Amino acid sequence: MSDLQIATAKEVFDLLRDDLAAIEREFVSQSQSQVEVITEIGRYLIAGGGKRIRPLLLLLSAKALGFEGDSRIRLGSVVEMLHTATLVHDDIIDEADTRRGRPSSNTTWGNSKCVLAGDWLYMQAFNVALQEQNFHILDLLISLTQQMVEGELLQMQKLGHLINEEEYFDLIFRKTACLFKVSMQLGATLAGAPDAIEAQLGEYGRNLGLAFQIIDDVLDLTATESTLGKPVASDLREGKATLAVIHALERGTGADREAIRTVLADRSFQRVTHSQILEILGRHGSLEYAHDTARAYAEAARLSIADLPDTDAKRALLWVPAYVVDRDR
Amino acid sequence: MSDLQIATAKEVFDLLRDDLAAIEREFVSQSQSQVEVITEIGRYLIAGGGKRIRPLLLLLSAKALGFEGDSRIRLGSVVEMLHTATLVHDDIIDEADTRRGRPSSNTTWGNSKCVLAGDWLYMQAFNVALQEQNFHILDLLISLTQQMVEGELLQMQKLGHLINEEEYFDLIFRKTACLFKVSMQLGATLAGAPDAIEAQLGEYGRNLGLAFQIIDDVLDLTATESTLGKPVASDLREGKATLAVIHALERGTGADREAIRTVLADRSFQRVTHSQILEILGRHGSLEYAHDTARAYAEAARLSIADLPDTDAKRALLWVPAYVVDRDR
Repeated sequence: MSDLQIATAKEVFDLLRDDLAAIEREFVSQSQSQVEVITEIGRYLIAGGGKRIRPLLLLLSAKALGFEGDSRIRLGSVVEMLHTATLVHDDIIDEADTRRGRPSSNTTWGNSKCVLAGDWLYMQAFNVALQEQNFHILDLLISLTQQMVEGELLQMQKLGHLINEEEYFDLIFRKTACLFKVSMQLGATLAGAPDAIEAQLGEYGRNLGLAFQIIDDVLDLTATESTLGKPVASDLREGKATLAVIHALERGTGADREAIRTVLADRSFQRVTHSQILEILGRHGSLEYAHDTARAYAEAARLSIADLPDTDAKRALLWVPAYVVDRDR
Repeated sequence: MSDLQIATAKEVFDLLRDDLAAIEREFVSQSQSQVEVITEIGRYLIAGGGKRIRPLLLLLSAKALGFEGDSRIRLGSVVEMLHTATLVHDDIIDEADTRRGRPSSNTTWGNSKCVLAGDWLYMQAFNVALQEQNFHILDLLISLTQQMVEGELLQMQKLGHLINEEEYFDLIFRKTACLFKVSMQLGATLAGAPDAIEAQLGEYGRNLGLAFQIIDDVLDLTATESTLGKPVASDLREGKATLAVIHALERGTGADREAIRTVLADRSFQRVTHSQILEILGRHGSLEYAHDTARAYAEAARLSIADLPDTDAKRALLWVPAYVVDRDR
């Protein structure tokens, strides 16, 4: 590892402010349709915000390899649009009431319109990507989307059941890390990087994505509703076992296992409370375990880009993992 | 128009039997996923049958221009797969209980899995199409899908309301004729046909698709449930005004208009019966009007391919319009 200094949040923001603003404008313009309700739903989803971490990764990946063309703005918007499309369909499936502190789109427009709005966003993302006239880009995006959809189906099959770590990592790769990986790969592709470099940047994205989702899952267990913008412990209430819970299951007493099994099967805290679960996780150091695992992936992400030339973008990429791991929402 | 003889049904079937069987095998193999439930739903949908008219058009279009490569089998399966994906999502939206005389897939697997299965089929169709390494093919397929999705949303907005003929034709173009058109265009593209020929074949598909959907809509009003494989007059019960109904609305007495308006608004035959509606349509010759319009589009389809060289495939293409217009289900 070089002794390149890690950037500060302010430096990263200064570096990308204009590009992220351009991507936001691009996202708005791409989400416009002659069919009014699509434009409406699009506007609502964009206004809901989000961390825009996928476009940020794509920008940094391209910048680290010296690419500054317009395609980075278009594809930055495309990855956010694909992410948004998956959220729209996931909210229907999870029967979510809220997303990012507001009513979820299915609550406002109904499931039927949201099925179609999600479909439209997928197609629009591919349509915009098609403008690049690059088969590798289309292959990355289409295969990615298929993997995400398969992941969501796998997750549904596992709801209410105990899963092991291997299954958990496969699920969070598909759910999150896969798109982080592709965002990084797209930046490399735009820069015309050799396969080996694209693979290294992809590896950064994969590691970062795993760290990101592990933390997301920890926050779901521990944060407050007002910080999170959605109900706490919604994973358990949907029957989803995440890393800390899997850890406690493997180390807990018979009674601990039974308590966790009950919540997952009931999909509610009626028989076993949220505090009881937190007590079990606390007793086995399960939340620390999940945090440590996320930190290890964050470090692996940093190591994946050790070979990149020293640039501001690389310094920013070295900053992102800590940002992802240390956030509180 | 040349004096080329129109093929018989048997001739068309003999001409395409092997290719259609190959497409069926391709469809089965393309619908396999490591995620079991996708393969299950895929197998169920394929077994449900269907007229396979879209692959048939693609085959005839390619054949009429002398193309016999394997791509015709792959893309024949792709157009049927896209069609199937739209049906899966449409059944969720329409809350359909039956499709092709069997429980619809959402009834068997639930909405959530079917949202994802539809997504997966879209992605798989694009994935297979990507193998052709042809941007025009991808552009046709992605734009098409977006138009179909927009059409479904437009239709939702118009449910329960009176629409005019122009709106009706826009809806049925998006719903049906657009994919017929693209199936023909794909055959031409595979054959490396010049733009003008591709446009003529596309025009054939568009005209044929309009005729097809007009007849579908007439059959929904007049056929029996056992012939149709789905409840009769389901369009009216979903608040959809189709061509014959629009015709009667424009020519009917005040009482006729009121009766139709009531059914569309109620989305049921509780206050006005199905027989009363049929009586109104009969009195104004509305069903004949719809039939005549379909026949005119069928004739326009035949005229669109007048310039093609005389081949067995052209003879078959001259047969299809009558098959589409004269069917009873």
